[in-house]
Amino acid sequence: MKEQIFITGYGQTSFGEKWNQGLRDLMDEAITSAIENAGCTALDIDTVVVSNMLGEVTNNQAHLGAMAASLLPHHPPSLRAEAACASGAVALHTACALLESGKAETVLVVGVEKMTDTPAGKIASALMGAADAEKDAPSGLTFPGIFGLIAARYMHEYDLSRDRLNTVSAVHHKNAVSNPFAQFRNEIPAEKISQSPKVAEPLCMLDCSPISDGAAAVILSTKLESPISIAASQIASDTVSITDRATLTSFAATKDAMEAALTEASLEREDIDHLELHDCFSIAAIISLEDMGFAEPGKGITLYEKESALSINASGGLKACGHPVAATGIKQIIDVSKQLSNSGKTYGLTQNFGGAAATCGIHILKHTPVS
Amino acid sequence: MKEQIFITGYGQTSFGEKWNQGLRDLMDEAITSAIENAGCTALDIDTVVVSNMLGEVTNNQAHLGAMAASLLPHHPPSLRAEAACASGAVALHTACALLESGKAETVLVVGVEKMTDTPAGKIASALMGAADAEKDAPSGLTFPGIFGLIAARYMHEYDLSRDRLNTVSAVHHKNAVSNPFAQFRNEIPAEKISQSPKVAEPLCMLDCSPISDGAAAVILSTKLESPISIAASQIASDTVSITDRATLTSFAATKDAMEAALTEASLEREDIDHLELHDCFSIAAIISLEDMGFAEPGKGITLYEKESALSINASGGLKACGHPVAATGIKQIIDVSKQLSNSGKTYGLTQNFGGAAATCGIHILKHTPVS
Repeated sequence: MKEQIFITGYGQTSFGEKWNQGLRDLMDEAITSAIENAGCTALDIDTVVVSNMLGEVTNNQAHLGAMAASLLPHHPPSLRAEAACASGAVALHTACALLESGKAETVLVVGVEKMTDTPAGKIASALMGAADAEKDAPSGLTFPGIFGLIAARYMHEYDLSRDRLNTVSAVHHKNAVSNPFAQFRNEIPAEKISQSPKVAEPLCMLDCSPISDGAAAVILSTKLESPISIAASQIASDTVSITDRATLTSFAATKDAMEAALTEASLEREDIDHLELHDCFSIAAIISLEDMGFAEPGKGITLYEKESALSINASGGLKACGHPVAATGIKQIIDVSKQLSNSGKTYGLTQNFGGAAATCGIHILKHTPVS
Repeated sequence: MKEQIFITGYGQTSFGEKWNQGLRDLMDEAITSAIENAGCTALDIDTVVVSNMLGEVTNNQAHLGAMAASLLPHHPPSLRAEAACASGAVALHTACALLESGKAETVLVVGVEKMTDTPAGKIASALMGAADAEKDAPSGLTFPGIFGLIAARYMHEYDLSRDRLNTVSAVHHKNAVSNPFAQFRNEIPAEKISQSPKVAEPLCMLDCSPISDGAAAVILSTKLESPISIAASQIASDTVSITDRATLTSFAATKDAMEAALTEASLEREDIDHLELHDCFSIAAIISLEDMGFAEPGKGITLYEKESALSINASGGLKACGHPVAATGIKQIIDVSKQLSNSGKTYGLTQNFGGAAATCGIHILKHTPVS
């Protein structure tokens, strides 16, 4: 990073079915909470970046940058960034660029999504906007369908059993019990995962992250110091359509973003203590661990099966926290910030991808305890 | 600007009804043209920023950053920026931040919109996403309705006659005759403007920019030099809803962005020779001229009535070129670049706003002739 960027404050709504709050209300709650946490005032914010994917479809509302800026008394410059479910990561990356360029000193990044008021079919169709409308959608694929294909191929290639796959969601549900912001705070025994209704062979309902409402906000600053800073911000791209890929069981964008992030931070992956990864579907968690190099190909599941020095989705992940898509990448930053503060450890990492990882963003956070 | 940012190349599709091209095809044509114009190769591009407002609604396609990146052999990092009709300006601003931060050396910015395949009612509703879905839309307002209110108030406050207002669209149509990329290249006598069908009192059809398909791309670089560079990139925000404004006849975001841009470039407005402004509706051109300080309040129309040293919308503007909303801000940069190259003059300016100027972006271009 050209400049030291501090995570000056953060705040979020709980994730879930927030039927009494619209996009504006959700953003307002998260922003108010972040400003309070930062100990600054709204007037310290000189730029606003909103992360949102679905506003036009769910709420007939574009232009959310200006709407968020309107929630601050001085209406600072604003824009919205989008990369499907990686919208949070690209919004953070944009904020870092604004800060490193000197165009901004203190940026509010707020991710928001309002999904649960929209009928399931319409939401499923809108989420397919993250895939290729010409190459993927006409075959009738949904996102569970795409990740069903990916899971089937992975289980075939690496001989992963359905029972072992159950571990991922079971661990995430267990982790969420102590997270007051999580949509689902109930433990689920592993065997129940594959007993839940089949969604897209071999994936069951409890392999899939839910439809959620929620907002999450962070205040990034080169001026207002804090013990947590950003050591790397990297994004990478891949083909939007899975039909253009050489493999279904590894995501090039995750690999590219991870290598670039480790290089930027001058770190080895062994330096990372806390990880929040993008488990939109259980199989995605396993593939992500492998693509980030925390496990060999085919071995990602082992990190869920045994005690590990690496803390993975201690928040509960997308599965149990909920997945208001464009808020997720911001929420991950909040979770890792809290984990670093609580553990006293030094490095944490977030991995946030969009579609079938056609976009992946990796952020590395550094904790410098106040001496 | 912290770094000198060159406009290394540019290209666009013609604007209009492009019924044989989808979003991908339109982007591809503009990108190919921009790379050819730049004299570089696709591999010189290290980051892609896409400007789009309506893809989710018109084409069920989000994630256009990755889609544009997929059109390049190496799939560079990408994101999409949005601020309604100011999407082009905020995408350019984002690209400048990426370049000034050192995160990128050569950025492709491509704006695209595919509007004409979508039924008129659905497009009108989607465009209302640029306004406030809770405060403006429930009253039945459309964007012509909003600008009809603005025009009515302006004509009352400043005693502007309907006949004088006709001049704006008439001049834009005349200017477009020589623009091969314009949607409408026919001169229209001034009196015909107010004889066209009434859309929203006092505005008639020929006061309104059309629904259009099209794409425009620019390649910005700190490395690949060219005679045209960016002297200022500024964005500003205002309330999304006009119900939250103190006045309907002046746009604070235009004023704020203009002052900041002149300060950034260390210029007076008299230094500007070529101007492309955001005439989504005829009245918007007049208000914009006043808010930018080129005319006193109430006197903007005079710049259309007499010969002036300032060239205004020589391209034909949004009215005659067409307005594929998120492509417009990029197209303006292309037009001003060409105008500066042709005239040999030094400074040009683009003004691109979204909604009722809840977002406004101002870019100042500098021409340094090769000696």
